[in-house]
Amino acid sequence: MTLAQKSILALSGGVGGAKLALGLADILAAGQLHVLANTGDDFKHLGLHISPDIDTLLYTLAGKSNESLGWGLAGETWSVMAALERLQGETWFRLGDNDLATHLWRTAQLADGASLAEVTDKLAQQLGILSHIHPMCEELVSTTVHSAERDLPFQHYFVREQCEPAVTGFSFEGVADASPNPEVMALLAGDELSTIVVCPSNPFVSVDPILQIPRMWTSLRDCSAPVVLVSPIVSGMAIKGPAAKMMLELGVPVTAFGVAQHYCDLYPDLVDYFVIDETDAKLADEIAHLGLNVAIAPTVMKSRDDKQRLGRFILELVE
Amino acid sequence: MTLAQKSILALSGGVGGAKLALGLADILAAGQLHVLANTGDDFKHLGLHISPDIDTLLYTLAGKSNESLGWGLAGETWSVMAALERLQGETWFRLGDNDLATHLWRTAQLADGASLAEVTDKLAQQLGILSHIHPMCEELVSTTVHSAERDLPFQHYFVREQCEPAVTGFSFEGVADASPNPEVMALLAGDELSTIVVCPSNPFVSVDPILQIPRMWTSLRDCSAPVVLVSPIVSGMAIKGPAAKMMLELGVPVTAFGVAQHYCDLYPDLVDYFVIDETDAKLADEIAHLGLNVAIAPTVMKSRDDKQRLGRFILELVE
Repeated sequence: MTLAQKSILALSGGVGGAKLALGLADILAAGQLHVLANTGDDFKHLGLHISPDIDTLLYTLAGKSNESLGWGLAGETWSVMAALERLQGETWFRLGDNDLATHLWRTAQLADGASLAEVTDKLAQQLGILSHIHPMCEELVSTTVHSAERDLPFQHYFVREQCEPAVTGFSFEGVADASPNPEVMALLAGDELSTIVVCPSNPFVSVDPILQIPRMWTSLRDCSAPVVLVSPIVSGMAIKGPAAKMMLELGVPVTAFGVAQHYCDLYPDLVDYFVIDETDAKLADEIAHLGLNVAIAPTVMKSRDDKQRLGRFILELVE
Repeated sequence: MTLAQKSILALSGGVGGAKLALGLADILAAGQLHVLANTGDDFKHLGLHISPDIDTLLYTLAGKSNESLGWGLAGETWSVMAALERLQGETWFRLGDNDLATHLWRTAQLADGASLAEVTDKLAQQLGILSHIHPMCEELVSTTVHSAERDLPFQHYFVREQCEPAVTGFSFEGVADASPNPEVMALLAGDELSTIVVCPSNPFVSVDPILQIPRMWTSLRDCSAPVVLVSPIVSGMAIKGPAAKMMLELGVPVTAFGVAQHYCDLYPDLVDYFVIDETDAKLADEIAHLGLNVAIAPTVMKSRDDKQRLGRFILELVE
């Protein structure tokens, strides 16, 4: 098996991670990319099982994501939300008509006894996606955001409160009893992987839930494939989402160095390569002192070309 | 309290019963009409709690029923169903976008601990309905249709199989453990009711589930208000739905007499007045022999005037 035929495993949350996953999928052969998706922000809403990060990955890899909204499906319509609004129902979590069909379908399949992995597989097939998307586990893991005043379920914090409360920490209910995705564990135990990529997703609420599943981070560490982490913080800002705001509130330096420190503290020897943006080149030495191989690249992914270029940079880095 | 101020209680299933309920609501004062709705065809579908007869009553009394389809909401759109079809999901039970909002709202409210009665009340208020709609009970009662080959959940028989299998009987799982709606039981125990109307709904799958709730039919019988039943069979045919087909398959005469016999056999002394269509006048003597007061009227309700006229006929009959 040559390197070019080996598989790539990418850990991802939603939007930011999905961009790099799309770049990797574009440059790899069909089936070569495996994405391990965060499900720590899955929740039950209006009777439906909603998996926001899996859906963002599905829609992005299918080329159907809504670029202007930054979430959901392109060309979406909103008839159900409008009717629910007239009923004075809960409309803070916006569910488009087409997106709702995904949730209805998933909920029905799960009720019929299918696993989340099977449901995700079938959705990927129906959307024509040639990569594998794996939920991090089957169990419901629920992220709680702690703030000075109160604790909030993640989607309430993220969508309803638009990340306004200052965070003091996070917990992932159910994570200690969750079992890591067996297909991913088999990949990690075998010799099929050439590279493990931690996408530029939020360290606290997208990557930590994955890594805190029992045996997950140690299996990633012990796998012979190198782990490449892409910093979600560029020039002291998060490209998308509340990562930078969270770091500030938690008293962590809001830099790529702060990100590197977070991973080195919690998951020693996990990360082999740390990719920082070219605008952060000055941080390279400081990060290298943590024992990481630092690589510098343009990491901001605006165009499809940007995504593919960063994907190619990561694969070549390891070769 | 004069008769004109007293309340009317109408037992109803879906479409046929809702027509008469609308006629009664039109001619009565605000709040004077109480409708006791069948929930024996309620079911869980795609994670949602669906109450078809309650919804038909809600939409009809709100003046929002889809007259051309014969079910659902007027001006409905179908974006979610189209998307679900693309996912090869279950689309045999057609859920319009606006209708879906009702189910999502109900499911969320029930999950939050509201009772079905409260949810129905709030929906009626939000739709501007001035009558009271009461679910027959809070418990899930599930109608099973027995046929020679197999048993079918009601909606599978009714919608998916379009009533094609020949029926041999019906059962209502959970009915023996259900408690009759307490507000209706209070009405029946008091002296507020002037008339009880059994709407021209399907005897087997719309009215029987209501009457077979423990204490329900005996409480209706023992209430001082007379019970007026309107035959759902006219000229040997059902105006809508499978009642006539069912009677044929069960070996019951497919006439108003067959309907009368069904009620007299199962619920002795329940019915006081039996209203048959003018085209069935020849059956009056035969029905009277069962011990019922027979009244003859035009019972086919095409226009809104027809509905009001039949409502007025029933109220005057009892006066």
